[in-house]
Amino acid sequence: MNFGRDTCARLDSSDPLASVRARFILPEGTIYLDGNSLGPLPSAVHKTLSSVIQEEWGTDLISSWNRHDWIGLPRKVGEKIAALIGAAPGQVVACDSTSINVFKLLSAALKTQEGRKVILSTRENFPTDLYMAEGLSQLLGQGDCELRVVSANQVRENLDQDIAVLMLTHVDFRSGRVFDMEGLTRAAHEAGALTLWDLAHSAGAVPVSLDAHEADLAVGCGYKYLNGGPGAPAFLYVAERHQSTLQQPLAGWMGHANPFEFDTHYQPAPGIERFLCGTPSVLAMRALDTAMDIWADIDMQEVRNKSVELCELFIRLVENSETLGELRLASPRNPAVRGSQVSFAHPESYAIMQALIDAGVIGDFRDPDLMRFGFTPLYTRFVDVWDAVSILERIVGDGVFREARFRERLRVT
Amino acid sequence: MNFGRDTCARLDSSDPLASVRARFILPEGTIYLDGNSLGPLPSAVHKTLSSVIQEEWGTDLISSWNRHDWIGLPRKVGEKIAALIGAAPGQVVACDSTSINVFKLLSAALKTQEGRKVILSTRENFPTDLYMAEGLSQLLGQGDCELRVVSANQVRENLDQDIAVLMLTHVDFRSGRVFDMEGLTRAAHEAGALTLWDLAHSAGAVPVSLDAHEADLAVGCGYKYLNGGPGAPAFLYVAERHQSTLQQPLAGWMGHANPFEFDTHYQPAPGIERFLCGTPSVLAMRALDTAMDIWADIDMQEVRNKSVELCELFIRLVENSETLGELRLASPRNPAVRGSQVSFAHPESYAIMQALIDAGVIGDFRDPDLMRFGFTPLYTRFVDVWDAVSILERIVGDGVFREARFRERLRVT
Repeated sequence: MNFGRDTCARLDSSDPLASVRARFILPEGTIYLDGNSLGPLPSAVHKTLSSVIQEEWGTDLISSWNRHDWIGLPRKVGEKIAALIGAAPGQVVACDSTSINVFKLLSAALKTQEGRKVILSTRENFPTDLYMAEGLSQLLGQGDCELRVVSANQVRENLDQDIAVLMLTHVDFRSGRVFDMEGLTRAAHEAGALTLWDLAHSAGAVPVSLDAHEADLAVGCGYKYLNGGPGAPAFLYVAERHQSTLQQPLAGWMGHANPFEFDTHYQPAPGIERFLCGTPSVLAMRALDTAMDIWADIDMQEVRNKSVELCELFIRLVENSETLGELRLASPRNPAVRGSQVSFAHPESYAIMQALIDAGVIGDFRDPDLMRFGFTPLYTRFVDVWDAVSILERIVGDGVFREARFRERLRVT
Repeated sequence: MNFGRDTCARLDSSDPLASVRARFILPEGTIYLDGNSLGPLPSAVHKTLSSVIQEEWGTDLISSWNRHDWIGLPRKVGEKIAALIGAAPGQVVACDSTSINVFKLLSAALKTQEGRKVILSTRENFPTDLYMAEGLSQLLGQGDCELRVVSANQVRENLDQDIAVLMLTHVDFRSGRVFDMEGLTRAAHEAGALTLWDLAHSAGAVPVSLDAHEADLAVGCGYKYLNGGPGAPAFLYVAERHQSTLQQPLAGWMGHANPFEFDTHYQPAPGIERFLCGTPSVLAMRALDTAMDIWADIDMQEVRNKSVELCELFIRLVENSETLGELRLASPRNPAVRGSQVSFAHPESYAIMQALIDAGVIGDFRDPDLMRFGFTPLYTRFVDVWDAVSILERIVGDGVFREARFRERLRVT
């Protein structure tokens, strides 16, 4: 490679985020480029969870709902996330799964859009978002809710008077392509539609300005760039101006105006809490809560700068390698419209990725032919990028990936 | 009291379940009679969660979905619960919250009940179950889904040709009254309705025979008698005969026939997995999974026998006490129709319960005037019952509860 490892080491030594890596437990001998699928373990989580299990659950038992403010966790964690996605307080709660939050917000939004019944999305969108819209459409009937999918570059021209909600994933999970949140939100509003942004690959990955861009609704994931642990609670955002008019159908007790009065009738809470439903897992919530503390002194712009540098370095090293000549960049070349991941296509991507994982470089494979690498500036070093490409060169150059064991399909996530 | 503590100690020493208490961590000096609200900490959970956090999440990271079968947890935990509620394998999954599971099953059931649009329930039902039905009704419109509530003793006469689903909580959360699952299920079927049973206060508390009683649908809670931890995943049951015809609208990726193929269209899984939605918290799921292992060698009939004895003892001690003459039994006197809890009414119930909690006897208060005591045979001793009544006598007899600090209303769960 024509860019030395020593240069990377120098970049690391002048990296303002270098010290943040110590806030994570990372396994020895592994280069983890899959934090966009499951963030690694924050160092503080084990100790906190021990205390939650032993003291809060074990000793204080039921009184912990008040004493340790378990009841306030959805809002408390929500506010920490809000700070990363450009949302003023009172608009974000952590709760349920991304899928369920999509359902809540789509159904709430449809109810307010008199005469408009279409959810517009892209066929490249994350499948579960489309599934939830399909499920809602089947429940309400095609006449009351229709999912319309178009290709990513045809969104604007399809914003017509039928569209109730434009549902987009801000950063594409395969390619890392970033949609223009500001421009598309404006276009949607001009067409009379509301916007629902899925921030699964955005929160903690790229700067997001929900309030400034006048986004209406958003959902996102706690276990990717936010490092909240496997299956961590998701989150949702509802712009304050919509909170009194939007009412979601998953009307569980946590979203009630007076959750402890055991009213016979549902009365939605006045603010963002009306988008809660049932009792959340306190263990899961406290893990995410602890993981979010990592961000307290982090400047998202600094994260973004390093993310771009890591991705650019990776692309440059791969593309300058003769051995890797068959790999084709499947992410936008322009960093301004690329998230914090890089995908390369290759006919043997599946086997190459298996061989990489076997060699300690963890990325993932996405159909049909993509190797996906997540670059997470909080704990990924420039030397990690260099080492990953060096191992990739060996695997492709020596034909390691041709071994039968790397071709056998496993279940992947 | 006219029944000595030594007699209770003798009952404990001959109790076949006595040794099970050691499987829990119980705080010193506390008599915990609130396991029907939040089960205590199983001893094995802390160690298991440490290993899940450090080894599975921390070291094996994303590969744990396969290596540690994270993906199989909803089904694996579901089967452990199935064994407690009379369900043959393949009919129970652990997932989401009870509220969300109610929504899934109600909406799925309504779709198959051509021409019938009414959900029949009782006004005494747990509020969140009613809220979820209200939410569904608001979403679909009153013409397509109507919630009809009657009093508990008027259920049968209201089972007419309008009723799509009869939704009942098997054991009433306030009084502990048990509905006749077998008879009401038969009556519902004769009227052409399906049944949805909420087992929140039944699973692990009383024997349940879902299959034998031909129940159609059920939901339940992981954090009460199952001791899965605060906000533990809930569960749902769908009788095998309904699985291919019922389709629920919360169509997330975990319920897809091929969750790892990232199809554009939703295709429900062929079996019980179609009732899953998004990614579950692995920490929460593994805590519940570990808690369920406690039941492996437990005979539910033995649990029931001891539960009845504990409740009978409690009632007898309270009712034989002159000091407690103002307390009025608010649970059925007949143990055959009473769950694993006893409620007493008193005009000063709130203050008395606060004083009891202050003295280390943890029960809870329920509006308007109920003191609720849960008797959980896995870890509650006969001497605990005796001691609890003795402390209750002191609090009522000495007027301790009249102190101002016990009258101030806190948020309660």
